[in-house]
Amino acid sequence: MHVCTTRVRYAETDQGGVAYHANYLNWFEVGRTDMLRTLGHPYARIERDLDILLTVTEAHLSYRSPALYDELLRIETRITEMRKVRFRVAARIVRAEDEGLLCDGSVWLASVTRDGRPIPLPESLAGVLSAELQSEEGKTGTEAVVTG
Amino acid sequence: MHVCTTRVRYAETDQGGVAYHANYLNWFEVGRTDMLRTLGHPYARIERDLDILLTVTEAHLSYRSPALYDELLRIETRITEMRKVRFRVAARIVRAEDEGLLCDGSVWLASVTRDGRPIPLPESLAGVLSAELQSEEGKTGTEAVVTG
Amino acid sequence: MHVCTTRVRYAETDQGGVAYHANYLNWFEVGRTDMLRTLGHPYARIERDLDILLTVTEAHLSYRSPALYDELLRIETRITEMRKVRFRVAARIVRAEDEGLLCDGSVWLASVTRDGRPIPLPESLAGVLSAELQSEEGKTGTEAVVTG
Amino acid sequence: MHVCTTRVRYAETDQGGVAYHANYLNWFEVGRTDMLRTLGHPYARIERDLDILLTVTEAHLSYRSPALYDELLRIETRITEMRKVRFRVAARIVRAEDEGLLCDGSVWLASVTRDGRPIPLPESLAGVLSAELQSEEGKTGTEAVVTG
Repeated sequence: MHVCTTRVRYAETDQGGVAYHANYLNWFEVGRTDMLRTLGHPYARIERDLDILLTVTEAHLSYRSPALYDELLRIETRITEMRKVRFRVAARIVRAEDEGLLCDGSVWLASVTRDGRPIPLPESLAGVLSAELQSEEGKTGTEAVVTG
Repeated sequence: MHVCTTRVRYAETDQGGVAYHANYLNWFEVGRTDMLRTLGHPYARIERDLDILLTVTEAHLSYRSPALYDELLRIETRITEMRKVRFRVAARIVRAEDEGLLCDGSVWLASVTRDGRPIPLPESLAGVLSAELQSEEGKTGTEAVVTG
Repeated sequence: MHVCTTRVRYAETDQGGVAYHANYLNWFEVGRTDMLRTLGHPYARIERDLDILLTVTEAHLSYRSPALYDELLRIETRITEMRKVRFRVAARIVRAEDEGLLCDGSVWLASVTRDGRPIPLPESLAGVLSAELQSEEGKTGTEAVVTG
Repeated sequence: MHVCTTRVRYAETDQGGVAYHANYLNWFEVGRTDMLRTLGHPYARIERDLDILLTVTEAHLSYRSPALYDELLRIETRITEMRKVRFRVAARIVRAEDEGLLCDGSVWLASVTRDGRPIPLPESLAGVLSAELQSEEGKTGTEAVVTG
């Protein structure tokens, strides 16, 4: 599991007095970006050097409790499934102060060319993601799911 | 079903050359706002006069094809389920030019007080939403789902 | 002057109960996009066919009165100055209901190559913008400012 | 001068391949929030305990060089002028890697009541801001500007 933090910006609040619900997708993405950088495969370089995009094909979010302005959030990110072309990343947004769960969910990311055609994940990237998935599964006791 | 339109803004694109995926939740919300205004219950008035918030508790999105800058989008919104406290709104984002489906999904909205406690949907609002749901179900041939 | 409209989205409000101030730059851009499309030079095509970007180099905004959720806004856009490489676009955001001025300001846009070097505005575009500027000045009685 | 950092998010890029220009106002605000928290007057508490809002009445931005995805940005914030009701905050956004200036500008903030009427800055807050302004001016050799 990869962990990073961010704070709720004023720009991210809405007139209900809490963080607007769409921002959680941005925070999920901040977590993925940070995870990929930590794994030695910054997404900026994936786009530029491997000439692929990782595009979101599916997203699911469960909102548990609202995030408030200026609260420090912990973003927990982990890979939970892998296929040839796509993989699933689960995320949890937690209030840092008291570890209260604010939102959890996941997105499927697919490897696509610049013109949008699905393409198998580049080997170097797939290797790193699989290692991350297996280390995760070692911890949780579930079996690896790396199918075609 | 309620229909309105919007255009993809430059601010909504990302460096992948398409609309950033979180914006679809904003567009879903534009559709709901427009639907509620059309039904005679503008959300601004619901917040102010009924002193409740309708908060998103769950969201699911399937991305089918990317939306591009300046494209005209058709936002289709309909109510698909109702409970005492919450209801589900399904949305489809369609490219107006050729009716291509870009994204579909749904959100659950719950009625809560200003301090976040769940509270049954106000009767006036629940009545209008149920009527909308039943008219929708009349069209599709499925049965009404208005349970506790 | 070019006029279009938009509504304040819930996503655009903040916990102060009004539209967050950065959104006005987005609305200015919605106005420019609409103006260029109306002038027969959609910005999407400028980027693609002329292979230049119009990048904002300077922005100034005066906030007069807050925009509220779901209010209909009128975006007024006009060209007020032209140089070889850049031009200035003034914008006013007006509450449609009572014509109350909410915000006015302007941005300078420069023509740049994909790698960020300034480049003279393409002739076809410069011609259309100059015509628009002169028609504007005919109305206001000020003199044309098309200098190097 | 107060300094904090942030990274450019994918959500903040546009199809020009750089950070969209409106985001700099968000980053200015991140800097102000961080400065007020450091000064012992978190803005969340100002809103709640003093029951005032600090609203942006004027903004000016000069864009020098584009910020790119995942770049680490240094946000420099300092108070440069004070009046009874409002004060000016200057900001600079600098690329952390090579100290390249990306954007500088300033905003005027006014103290207003919940219903938008101007009201003198609360004494406790004004005292802290003035001290910050004077320490800043001690460094730069300019004279304090604390007028009515």
